[in-house]
Amino acid sequence: MAMTGVLRPGHAQLRVLDMEESVKFYTEVMGLLEVGRDDQGRVYFKCWDERDHHSVVLRQADRAGIDFFGFKVLNKDVLNKYERDLKEYGVKTERIPAGDLLETGERVRFQIPTGHTIELYAEKKDVGNGMSYTNPEAWVPNIPGIAPIRMDHALLYGGDIDGAHDLFSKVFGFSLVERIKLEDGKTDLAIWLTCSTKAHDVALVRHSEDNKLHHLSFRLESWEQVLRAADLMSMHRVSIDAGPTRHGVTRGTTIYFFDPSGNRLETFCGGYDFYPDMQPITWTWEEVGAGVFYHDRKLNERFLTVVT
Amino acid sequence: MAMTGVLRPGHAQLRVLDMEESVKFYTEVMGLLEVGRDDQGRVYFKCWDERDHHSVVLRQADRAGIDFFGFKVLNKDVLNKYERDLKEYGVKTERIPAGDLLETGERVRFQIPTGHTIELYAEKKDVGNGMSYTNPEAWVPNIPGIAPIRMDHALLYGGDIDGAHDLFSKVFGFSLVERIKLEDGKTDLAIWLTCSTKAHDVALVRHSEDNKLHHLSFRLESWEQVLRAADLMSMHRVSIDAGPTRHGVTRGTTIYFFDPSGNRLETFCGGYDFYPDMQPITWTWEEVGAGVFYHDRKLNERFLTVVT
Amino acid sequence: MAMTGVLRPGHAQLRVLDMEESVKFYTEVMGLLEVGRDDQGRVYFKCWDERDHHSVVLRQADRAGIDFFGFKVLNKDVLNKYERDLKEYGVKTERIPAGDLLETGERVRFQIPTGHTIELYAEKKDVGNGMSYTNPEAWVPNIPGIAPIRMDHALLYGGDIDGAHDLFSKVFGFSLVERIKLEDGKTDLAIWLTCSTKAHDVALVRHSEDNKLHHLSFRLESWEQVLRAADLMSMHRVSIDAGPTRHGVTRGTTIYFFDPSGNRLETFCGGYDFYPDMQPITWTWEEVGAGVFYHDRKLNERFLTVVT
Amino acid sequence: MAMTGVLRPGHAQLRVLDMEESVKFYTEVMGLLEVGRDDQGRVYFKCWDERDHHSVVLRQADRAGIDFFGFKVLNKDVLNKYERDLKEYGVKTERIPAGDLLETGERVRFQIPTGHTIELYAEKKDVGNGMSYTNPEAWVPNIPGIAPIRMDHALLYGGDIDGAHDLFSKVFGFSLVERIKLEDGKTDLAIWLTCSTKAHDVALVRHSEDNKLHHLSFRLESWEQVLRAADLMSMHRVSIDAGPTRHGVTRGTTIYFFDPSGNRLETFCGGYDFYPDMQPITWTWEEVGAGVFYHDRKLNERFLTVVT
Repeated sequence: MAMTGVLRPGHAQLRVLDMEESVKFYTEVMGLLEVGRDDQGRVYFKCWDERDHHSVVLRQADRAGIDFFGFKVLNKDVLNKYERDLKEYGVKTERIPAGDLLETGERVRFQIPTGHTIELYAEKKDVGNGMSYTNPEAWVPNIPGIAPIRMDHALLYGGDIDGAHDLFSKVFGFSLVERIKLEDGKTDLAIWLTCSTKAHDVALVRHSEDNKLHHLSFRLESWEQVLRAADLMSMHRVSIDAGPTRHGVTRGTTIYFFDPSGNRLETFCGGYDFYPDMQPITWTWEEVGAGVFYHDRKLNERFLTVVT
Repeated sequence: MAMTGVLRPGHAQLRVLDMEESVKFYTEVMGLLEVGRDDQGRVYFKCWDERDHHSVVLRQADRAGIDFFGFKVLNKDVLNKYERDLKEYGVKTERIPAGDLLETGERVRFQIPTGHTIELYAEKKDVGNGMSYTNPEAWVPNIPGIAPIRMDHALLYGGDIDGAHDLFSKVFGFSLVERIKLEDGKTDLAIWLTCSTKAHDVALVRHSEDNKLHHLSFRLESWEQVLRAADLMSMHRVSIDAGPTRHGVTRGTTIYFFDPSGNRLETFCGGYDFYPDMQPITWTWEEVGAGVFYHDRKLNERFLTVVT
Repeated sequence: MAMTGVLRPGHAQLRVLDMEESVKFYTEVMGLLEVGRDDQGRVYFKCWDERDHHSVVLRQADRAGIDFFGFKVLNKDVLNKYERDLKEYGVKTERIPAGDLLETGERVRFQIPTGHTIELYAEKKDVGNGMSYTNPEAWVPNIPGIAPIRMDHALLYGGDIDGAHDLFSKVFGFSLVERIKLEDGKTDLAIWLTCSTKAHDVALVRHSEDNKLHHLSFRLESWEQVLRAADLMSMHRVSIDAGPTRHGVTRGTTIYFFDPSGNRLETFCGGYDFYPDMQPITWTWEEVGAGVFYHDRKLNERFLTVVT
Repeated sequence: MAMTGVLRPGHAQLRVLDMEESVKFYTEVMGLLEVGRDDQGRVYFKCWDERDHHSVVLRQADRAGIDFFGFKVLNKDVLNKYERDLKEYGVKTERIPAGDLLETGERVRFQIPTGHTIELYAEKKDVGNGMSYTNPEAWVPNIPGIAPIRMDHALLYGGDIDGAHDLFSKVFGFSLVERIKLEDGKTDLAIWLTCSTKAHDVALVRHSEDNKLHHLSFRLESWEQVLRAADLMSMHRVSIDAGPTRHGVTRGTTIYFFDPSGNRLETFCGGYDFYPDMQPITWTWEEVGAGVFYHDRKLNERFLTVVT
């Protein structure tokens, strides 16, 4: 089969400082749909065009950040195979029972060398995107807020991104799409990896501290929706970090902004299609600014320092 | 690996009635780049953002239509495996030597049950997209014409689309993304198949005659570029069949139009991302109009009858 | 002063066959805001970004069409002056008392040579556009439906368009922006007139019957909103006459469609800015198709025949 | 007549430090068309969709800035009348003979209380916009660079903006569209004035030094063209001051950037239509940030300090 193995980022669990304020933000401003709450007090959301039960899970905690980032795999056989492959690669795995996340099957959890917790799972209930599987309309009207079509990717900060790169490549067959080099011209400062034809499904930046979240990204369908998103952020007094602008890396358009707990989010649009026969693109240290913020061609200080 | 096997539609060879007029059209109006000519008189083109040597080949003939439609596969091992799988499936294959198409490796050629000639190949020279693999810019300015980013898919008309569906699914693992049913509610009038996360890489419509081309499609990046394309078609007095409009199927936006030989082309934008864990969408006979032309919700007669 | 005299089209009263169905259509599909009803049973609407009390008035009747089309003038002195000028020009005028239309001052009503009833008025209550006059936001979120920013212009069909042209020019100083000529190369088939920098505030087509409405037009802010409008029309099974497409005349983008009573409406975007020092554009009979529908370059039959 | 008196900003003469480099910038990056040079060494440009001979004049000098900003008036009678009105108002005027600017009639020059030199003129040769006045196409293809449709407005910095406001209002009938108040809630920090239905034809900011240029603005037709402009600026290593973003004032979208001499330019899109019956919008000192940069809701320091 053409798309096999790991399909896509399927869920992320974020820590928030105040659940009530956060639910308000993720529904009214972000335009996600609340789809459930569990007995641990976690609240579940999906983007309107996602068909699986949820993609974002919020957990109240005393510091912000990401608990885990989960990828959906093709089926249970693939899940079992990857569990074996991970062990063989030397990574300890843990099975989380079905139902621990609402409407979600068993998950295989493990840590990557940057300290982040990654999960694989094969089953999550298809609840549809609000349109029929027979004679559907083109989209669902009257969703308030930014209303991205899906949770798209995450950018994670940690120490050993070479190790993470090796694991994602060797075990799961992810491709390197783009990279930024440090001054030495050899060491990767940042890498963008894909398991599909998207320009990135996960990205990593070398950082002094492990297990940090730079941003969780949500996909919009046009540059005009990026403008609309920025307008809505202003109306709701959301703190914008950067944008609307374009990334040099992936060529996508973007806004970085912060949720009420300080987690950086992104609304992202575009990016070219990548296939595994394509050679990766390299950004040199001198042009890291253009790689990240294509218009200004310089980093803001927050890009390399503010993470949760 | 996540993307394996068949990667994408990689080339199509079209028959044109007048090569000079056609080269003018495909470069000045379509905005493709001429990249070479061979000793058979064929002319080769690529879309600006494609990295492989070419995607469209024109051959002068006394009737329009498509000679063959080729898919790029991951590597030579995959090519060899598919050749064996095709034979095992009961399909006769032919090897076309490397170099028969410029800058292209060996091709495995076979016929699908709708009478179309399909090819697989693993190698085509990476000539780049006009931007460096180090610190690239975001796009290439000053390309005249419509300038799609790539050749995207084809819609083929023929008799046994069930047989073609079976072959693409069983041998290559293509997924069924959408289908239109005939009045009986059982028989497929049309099917959209993907080997990637695109909403379609190839589509088939049941037709009284085999080996027919409905259209070859080229991808644009925004609805505004669709408008620009329609404007350019008007400026160049190109015959527009339908659009700008939206398809119900795939939700993409579209213009159908004709090249000087009468081959229908499409400029296409959007379409949702499909993953193989998603159930297909079905359109009933009553809503075939909305499936094809979402705004008007009715077919024009040409859609089912005019092919080359 | 730079903008003097007649400012803009300010209101249109349309006849509808079923008020309940029409109110539903104009609010839920068109996205106008209902702002009042009077003791004659008329229902009043405004577009969200208009500041005056209303721009569209619906009156239930047994046939569709337009009762009158009203222009706002700068102030009461101008209103009085135009009343005198009209009489001097030889046109009979009628004063409609303040309050006959809700929140509207006295109106001066008269007939133009094409049989249409035109009104002038100087006062209509400023109810705002839903945003403060101090530190406003950029737009009003969560308005359902197409939600044009304003009622923009009307295209009227009638016999003596030369007479109407003369009156609008001589009495009110309207400028001719574009014209389509008949086969004889002399007679105007259609004229586009402006009292502002818009490419048209009113247009007229020569027709066998007087006092007919071709369409009432509403302004959208982008081509993407034109797409969104067409999508919403499809979702609501609105009958689309033509579009999304571009007009050659004015260069604006457009959809023509019908309200439940058969009145043709338009959602319009763009059009160049016109100043009275610019010479008008002429379309010859051979290119009338491109003038009306720029992409297809041919008229549909309905354009010249279906009016209310 | 509806549009009378002053029609629009018609030309601006900018000082540049290096003519050769500037001509390259204004043609290749800005996408203006060079239309002539005079015996003083000045170089003339027009935007593609302007019909008059030129709108931008560059003069080499040892410091950047604006020499004068000119408005086109309806005709010579209006020009003569305004000359008398200016004198009556107490402003000294000067007649510049026809031909001093290429293809331009007599100009009436005067100083406004902020020290800027303003001109009025009634005649400039209609050279067309590159499309026929008979059966034109929709736009002109293959113009390199940003290619705005016209020179749109200027933002001028100087001391006595109240005096300038009074002059533009009393003599020319300009309307106040928006204003930003200082901390005292009374004094205007900035005012936006229009002579048409545009949200601004000229704007003024209170400043310690007279006769300064904040920016000269050029109009684009869509937010997607704003993105394209920012991309082109990056490709040409143009220094971007702010944007792409939206202004709260006028609601238009914008990029501020610098020409090679340090003159700030703007590419601007949108802005609502203003009519003289509409009350102005006021921004308080606390929200000046949102008024200028709607997304970030804070000024960058350069906005109030860097002028030429």
